[in-house]
Amino acid sequence: MTQLPRTETGPLSLNWGAPDPLVRGPVIGTRSNAQHRNVLGAHSGPHATYRALAIASGALHPAQKPDLTLTKPTDIIGPYPQWFKPGRIVSLDPFGAVVADAFRNYIAEGFDIRPTIAITKAHILVPEIVDAINVGRLKPDGKILKEKGDCVVTKAAIDQVWHLPGIASRFGITDELLRHALVEQAGMDRELVERKDLEVFLPPIPGSTVYIFGDPAKLADPSTPLTARVHDECNGSDVFGSDICVCRPYLMHAIEECIRGTQAGGVGVIVYFRKEGRALGEVTKFLAYNTRKRQEGGDTADRYFACTENVAGVQDMRFQQLMPDVLHWLGVSRIHRLFSMNPEKYEAIVQSGIEVIERIPIPPELVPFEAQVEVAAKIAAGYYTPADQSNVVPLSQTKGRDLG
Amino acid sequence: MTQLPRTETGPLSLNWGAPDPLVRGPVIGTRSNAQHRNVLGAHSGPHATYRALAIASGALHPAQKPDLTLTKPTDIIGPYPQWFKPGRIVSLDPFGAVVADAFRNYIAEGFDIRPTIAITKAHILVPEIVDAINVGRLKPDGKILKEKGDCVVTKAAIDQVWHLPGIASRFGITDELLRHALVEQAGMDRELVERKDLEVFLPPIPGSTVYIFGDPAKLADPSTPLTARVHDECNGSDVFGSDICVCRPYLMHAIEECIRGTQAGGVGVIVYFRKEGRALGEVTKFLAYNTRKRQEGGDTADRYFACTENVAGVQDMRFQQLMPDVLHWLGVSRIHRLFSMNPEKYEAIVQSGIEVIERIPIPPELVPFEAQVEVAAKIAAGYYTPADQSNVVPLSQTKGRDLG
Repeated sequence: MTQLPRTETGPLSLNWGAPDPLVRGPVIGTRSNAQHRNVLGAHSGPHATYRALAIASGALHPAQKPDLTLTKPTDIIGPYPQWFKPGRIVSLDPFGAVVADAFRNYIAEGFDIRPTIAITKAHILVPEIVDAINVGRLKPDGKILKEKGDCVVTKAAIDQVWHLPGIASRFGITDELLRHALVEQAGMDRELVERKDLEVFLPPIPGSTVYIFGDPAKLADPSTPLTARVHDECNGSDVFGSDICVCRPYLMHAIEECIRGTQAGGVGVIVYFRKEGRALGEVTKFLAYNTRKRQEGGDTADRYFACTENVAGVQDMRFQQLMPDVLHWLGVSRIHRLFSMNPEKYEAIVQSGIEVIERIPIPPELVPFEAQVEVAAKIAAGYYTPADQSNVVPLSQTKGRDLG
Repeated sequence: MTQLPRTETGPLSLNWGAPDPLVRGPVIGTRSNAQHRNVLGAHSGPHATYRALAIASGALHPAQKPDLTLTKPTDIIGPYPQWFKPGRIVSLDPFGAVVADAFRNYIAEGFDIRPTIAITKAHILVPEIVDAINVGRLKPDGKILKEKGDCVVTKAAIDQVWHLPGIASRFGITDELLRHALVEQAGMDRELVERKDLEVFLPPIPGSTVYIFGDPAKLADPSTPLTARVHDECNGSDVFGSDICVCRPYLMHAIEECIRGTQAGGVGVIVYFRKEGRALGEVTKFLAYNTRKRQEGGDTADRYFACTENVAGVQDMRFQQLMPDVLHWLGVSRIHRLFSMNPEKYEAIVQSGIEVIERIPIPPELVPFEAQVEVAAKIAAGYYTPADQSNVVPLSQTKGRDLG
């Protein structure tokens, strides 16, 4: 293994986008060795705060390093050509899953190098899939879908790693402006504007989780039919089944279609992004719900987006332009069936160079009655639907419950 | 409405724990008016980063203020005596839901004062509850539980608001040490150590969501039977049904019991804390899964906790000592049936002055086969169970799947 030239005490340099991991260099986020650290921020997204509490209270030694011996990925992802195309991946580290192997000599030397991606295998057992088997819509095959309804998946957890010049470029702004906004508007450390020599930032926000159905290597084969959904977190629906939106029903439908597609010789992927409430957070979301329900005329589809904007100043903060990075990490170049109606997601994917053959909206029978307001508003705003919309009920008459 | 004496340009002062909201003062986290801001950090937890992106990219004006006109809580929570007992609530703002009302004159003057809590009503529809109705375990009553299985709840989203001296005291450390750890270990703004005049911090971590079954006012009545679960986020199980743990099954069981208890004249509460993977995050969690599965002898209960500690340096970072704050915000002084086996949760609740009459473990038939490892390990480590444990299988023989 070659070693890069470096000074005795200086950080290992990072050359974002380089194909050889040793030329690219490891992301070193250690907070206990300022000489080694070569990025801004701290590991583990928002969980860095809990780590600080653990250290402050004496539960964790600040110099603790993870034992990575048995942690390596269960499946190899990449490397793929997209990893090295300039500006194609700017919000995660494509080498994040293989640091224990790629940088083993540095780790042996004492560098604290941590995975920002972890890949494992799991069986998932969701009631909607069990129901689909019970009514005969799905049939267990013993391999992908087991008799009891559990489904075998490969899954990856991904922390965000931001290449600041690349992020800025994605938004059409300068690196300087981006850094100042993070410091001034989000209250982040001034190091962001002071250390221009560091180009990579570990932001205090959560990342994403990838669920893969079938052979992960086939995600990169454009001739293997790929079923996909890119899903943005909605705890109220995803976990608690709130009937005001279609988040869980659409997600579960996509899981069912991933299973069906994989059984037919294809492959499936669900990416779950931790961007609660259009990345506005749940407090803002609930404030907007109250505004919708209390406005004159009640909760009607024609006022759906305006209510969020009244509270948040914007309709959405999810910034889908960063979303396709994870698809490129997986090597995806063609999606045969995309389970999303969101035009911003679609455009972000297509503009990043991935072909989308078909978009499939949520089947109407899966839309909770109360969520008709959301769906009608979204279709009127340009969300994808193949159905003839000429006969739909006027937006002002698609109306939800009051707060009663 | 009285106005506190203040200088023309200085911040409104904060007197944490004061019963009169005007004496306590509003939490002002604005990043666009340094003269007004009286706390450290930024609003909306991790979502502040997305707000910075929105401003940097021109989607949002930095001086935008929310229109709070129609956002007020659907239900009044408190005030309760616990709100003003010194040190009882240190990680949320008990007045966070009523700022539009309590501080309306300041808001009219131009202060940007935002809710850190939002309270709304919802119908939740989860497949496990529908199943419980279908097999006759639950019966719709038309009020709490509707015919189709949707359940009427009041829910509250809560952002974290930290009173730093109170947080430090909860951990038995100095305010000084806490501030330094947040800056040095989590990479937060140095303002934390420089601005000792500011005692309150809005951390970049997510908060919690409260689901209330029945009359929210009765949560504070110790004679009304209260069913409760304090649940820590586990996306892999809560949403995707991973069979390696009991998170979703226990949560859904608790929801069923909250409904049953409310139908019988009681009240129920579920608090969902965004502390993914024991607050270590999902990357660390998946690394620990791989270690469990790959170790010599396979995934056995006797090695369950050691595997996480090998990777993370600690077994757990959830810091349950902050968790009871939300129960005190709700006015809870007695829990009749607590659906948790976790001794740290129990001790934190009891030590904070709340009586717990009965603890109820997850029914064995709800434990996925693969999650036997977790449950056996936890019971051996002191998790609560009323069953006679003398005949259990040895820990080394409670074994899970390999990575296959």
